[in-house]
Amino acid sequence: MCKVLDKINTPKDLKVLSRNELIQLCGEIRQQMIWRLSATGGHVGSNLAIIEATVALHYVFNSPVDKIIFDVSHQCYTHKLLTGRKAAYTDPAKFSSVSGFTNPAESEHDIFSIGHTSTAISLACGMAKGRDVKGECHNVIALVGDGALSGGEAFEGLNNAAALGSNIILIINDNDMSIAENHGGLYQNLRLLRETDGRADCNFFRALGFDYSFVRDGNDFNEIVAALEKVKDTDHPVVIHMCTVKGKGYRFAETDKENWHYMGPFDIDTGNPRQGVVPAETYEALTAAYLTDKMRIDPAVTAITAGTPKVLGFEEELRNQFPKQFVDVGIAEGHAVAMISGIAKAGGKPVFGVSSSFLQRTYDQLSSDLALNHSPAVILVFFAGIGGGSQTHMGVFDISLAANIPGIVYLAPTCKEEYFSMLEWGLNQTEHPVIIRVPGATTVSRDAVLLSEYSYPAKYEIVEHGTTVAILALGKFFKLGESVRQKLLAEHGINATLINPRYASVVDKTMLGALPEYGHRLIVTLEDGVIDGGFGEKVTRFYGASSVKVLNFGAKKEFVNHVAAEEQYGRYHLTENQIISDILELL
Amino acid sequence: MCKVLDKINTPKDLKVLSRNELIQLCGEIRQQMIWRLSATGGHVGSNLAIIEATVALHYVFNSPVDKIIFDVSHQCYTHKLLTGRKAAYTDPAKFSSVSGFTNPAESEHDIFSIGHTSTAISLACGMAKGRDVKGECHNVIALVGDGALSGGEAFEGLNNAAALGSNIILIINDNDMSIAENHGGLYQNLRLLRETDGRADCNFFRALGFDYSFVRDGNDFNEIVAALEKVKDTDHPVVIHMCTVKGKGYRFAETDKENWHYMGPFDIDTGNPRQGVVPAETYEALTAAYLTDKMRIDPAVTAITAGTPKVLGFEEELRNQFPKQFVDVGIAEGHAVAMISGIAKAGGKPVFGVSSSFLQRTYDQLSSDLALNHSPAVILVFFAGIGGGSQTHMGVFDISLAANIPGIVYLAPTCKEEYFSMLEWGLNQTEHPVIIRVPGATTVSRDAVLLSEYSYPAKYEIVEHGTTVAILALGKFFKLGESVRQKLLAEHGINATLINPRYASVVDKTMLGALPEYGHRLIVTLEDGVIDGGFGEKVTRFYGASSVKVLNFGAKKEFVNHVAAEEQYGRYHLTENQIISDILELL
Repeated sequence: MCKVLDKINTPKDLKVLSRNELIQLCGEIRQQMIWRLSATGGHVGSNLAIIEATVALHYVFNSPVDKIIFDVSHQCYTHKLLTGRKAAYTDPAKFSSVSGFTNPAESEHDIFSIGHTSTAISLACGMAKGRDVKGECHNVIALVGDGALSGGEAFEGLNNAAALGSNIILIINDNDMSIAENHGGLYQNLRLLRETDGRADCNFFRALGFDYSFVRDGNDFNEIVAALEKVKDTDHPVVIHMCTVKGKGYRFAETDKENWHYMGPFDIDTGNPRQGVVPAETYEALTAAYLTDKMRIDPAVTAITAGTPKVLGFEEELRNQFPKQFVDVGIAEGHAVAMISGIAKAGGKPVFGVSSSFLQRTYDQLSSDLALNHSPAVILVFFAGIGGGSQTHMGVFDISLAANIPGIVYLAPTCKEEYFSMLEWGLNQTEHPVIIRVPGATTVSRDAVLLSEYSYPAKYEIVEHGTTVAILALGKFFKLGESVRQKLLAEHGINATLINPRYASVVDKTMLGALPEYGHRLIVTLEDGVIDGGFGEKVTRFYGASSVKVLNFGAKKEFVNHVAAEEQYGRYHLTENQIISDILELL
Repeated sequence: MCKVLDKINTPKDLKVLSRNELIQLCGEIRQQMIWRLSATGGHVGSNLAIIEATVALHYVFNSPVDKIIFDVSHQCYTHKLLTGRKAAYTDPAKFSSVSGFTNPAESEHDIFSIGHTSTAISLACGMAKGRDVKGECHNVIALVGDGALSGGEAFEGLNNAAALGSNIILIINDNDMSIAENHGGLYQNLRLLRETDGRADCNFFRALGFDYSFVRDGNDFNEIVAALEKVKDTDHPVVIHMCTVKGKGYRFAETDKENWHYMGPFDIDTGNPRQGVVPAETYEALTAAYLTDKMRIDPAVTAITAGTPKVLGFEEELRNQFPKQFVDVGIAEGHAVAMISGIAKAGGKPVFGVSSSFLQRTYDQLSSDLALNHSPAVILVFFAGIGGGSQTHMGVFDISLAANIPGIVYLAPTCKEEYFSMLEWGLNQTEHPVIIRVPGATTVSRDAVLLSEYSYPAKYEIVEHGTTVAILALGKFFKLGESVRQKLLAEHGINATLINPRYASVVDKTMLGALPEYGHRLIVTLEDGVIDGGFGEKVTRFYGASSVKVLNFGAKKEFVNHVAAEEQYGRYHLTENQIISDILELL
């Protein structure tokens, strides 16, 4: 059935095809991709939009001599299929042989490991500069979505790419969508350009100095090939502004673009998710319910997202209910943190929800804009902890990066009751920047001792009184601490003390100081994050000059790509039996 | 002599002045400011440029009800003078009563502590949003220099400010200069706008959706007042693009804008620096000499700065000698890090020089763009360590933020010989992102054991063999370790081991493991940075399960504003006697 696709193994195979065969190939890839995505899930919308452009890129240019860099790279499936990895999209046994992002370990056609947005233009600038100083001669191309243009790094890249003075080709893939809808002044200019076929005088890209051309239908193979051939081997920076349809060719994805940005396995005919088990309760939904209750009675309460409203539980309907108090700043996490500092200074009560992996895009804003100004804003960190996903989106670095900034109260609740108790305090206090680490993906309930305030000095919670060993089990790992304690008691007769530290950023000196007096000789810290620079090391330092011994458990400082969480636990000595064995060795 | 200025104590005092008196006041302030700056030094160029605009802002608007936010805030001197702090600019005894940046602790007219560039628009967005949700009604104004617009956070702010839908007034203070000259495509648009009196069709600000107006002479008080009165109480986002002359009214500063961006005390008549003692040798100059030697023989060697070429020792003449291999990306540190990753991937040999305080603007790029991609690029971190300067520019956080990122080799040389040995290795190796912490402001020479490679696993240098106590003295603090050792021996007969750890990012497990075997019972770590998340905690963790005791010395996790380094040493137990006393207590 897949007549043309069968012949394609490398980009070179494209060069001998007729135009009709190439167009047929795009159709075949689309059907193949829908079938594959229906089985595995993935980034549906962006990949269906970019099939023609990707085939055209590999037809016109000469990868890997010419360098093609995909921003975010969640739209790289066709690129992978064309560059020696076809089986990953045709053979179910090989589905997991590739990741969803570009990765140099997979192919010489993948220049960088990329997963965060807005980086490709800067990386391409570097590739072009490296080429120029070495006196080489090839094309450097970056493919960037319209949604990524709101990110500061993309603008820094554009500003510098425009002044590069040599070959760099930026393809702006404008499907008029970010993950959700776009936000910001730039997007009315993109709309104006779309509506005028790129002819409007006021042109963001020309203002920056780019040679600009417009592709009305980026899903028309001939049109995109013509545009690429025109700029191939250019001696100056160019922008091709290309319009595509997100979800192109699959009606459900075309209609409901936001929900089909990323989708798990689905039924092709109905578009219904295959794995229909939706958790009864999620932190996202609970958070949205909590915040909207507050927003209804207090206009000062504002919820902020940087392009990922669903992380905070704000589905479209909810966003429409709170047009003033819910703010999506687009993919611009740094701005979001500075903005909540401003809102808090003005007497508002801002809550910014962000994934752990993207919190790292805000270090300077956390420090300079927020913490230095003691702004009482709240940041909720979702998807933190060891996971089985891509090395580009790990959730283990947030404590190390944010909890060492002066003045930030970094809280790690163990359960939903404690999470909302901390959020309630954070929202109503007026002195501290507060970060709360949402405890995992599935909700946990526990009879935690709740406080009316979580300011400094820190007060840890002693959950079980024991002796000899004290287990400090932070946040989501509290459950692990509970199991270790039970097993130590049941199997080894050791009655350990169990402590919920509540805070990731500081130690409770009073409690830690008292533990040795009550017969504790070994302190164990458990945290769902990298140990380096994390919570446990603070505890170890506290006891550095004493004879108390401390064992820190957590993740190793390394990038991990698609390794199941359970396997990582084993590697890091984070299973109950490993922890117990390490404890016994020291007693 | 200062007839009008004598009458001014608060912005209210401006409201009753005639237009002629206001213009006279600007002249009086300028003379006063030149006199004050000649005695204290400071940001000369930006402050002389902005006198008329600042008087106009306080004349037209009603601070602190209306909020005026100064980007970077190094141009806030006239603002401070007008808002109750005149004595700090007229009375030598009060010169040090104010800092060089806005600070809410000084005045209710200072909304934020600001010292990093490109943040004001985002902060203003937040202030405006907070005002809107609370149903208040006042103006929110951000004053932003042209040089700051290259920073990603400024663009994220612009993009969102344009779509705010309510009052926000952005004054772009265009003096056609960053710290050095501007770089990037944006600046040819600003030039076009200047050359067309703001009438060009292709307008960066209009493209983003702003209501735009142009002020040809922002040093003409009447012209700027007229522009401000027109936008006061606007109900939508506006940009005033205002041209000023950097260094206005002081001929030396007008002529040599780069060197007069910041100047120490000087003689008014000659413009000559008063404190003429220039160190014979600086790391900046040595680095530039080293790099240019390399650049001459190897075209792949590139030096990168983000708007501060002198940090890397590249004075204007040197920049002109290497137009291709020296790259100034403007104030865009994130882009710089992504770009060096690209250059390295393309086979170039990039070296990025940056201040410790600005390294924190690159966390995500260090992690995602650089480290995850194992790009063999070198970053040189200048001005690291405890200093006596502004809380906005501290140099103590770089180890905590960067050395905990996987794969980054973070080196801390103890002297210039070791610094260049590490740089030589970093430049020529092909596997690791390398950060080197430049050891202090004044050069130090030492007979260090140099290695031909500084890869992992780490190898620490044992400088003096002793027993009982081992002192691990990192980087610039090696000298402190030396003195402590000598004093311990001379005064207490304790023959301590002295170790140069070389690496801030990892421990040398072999050496640390061997120390107890050779009779060491106490390990002391010294680092010129915050202890939290730093180097010492890694050492402490290594010994956590052993009976070896560890003392970590370094800075406390806090923001410190203009406290002499010596005083901070005392606070942090970093004097020789304090360290020795702490050691003796444990023996």
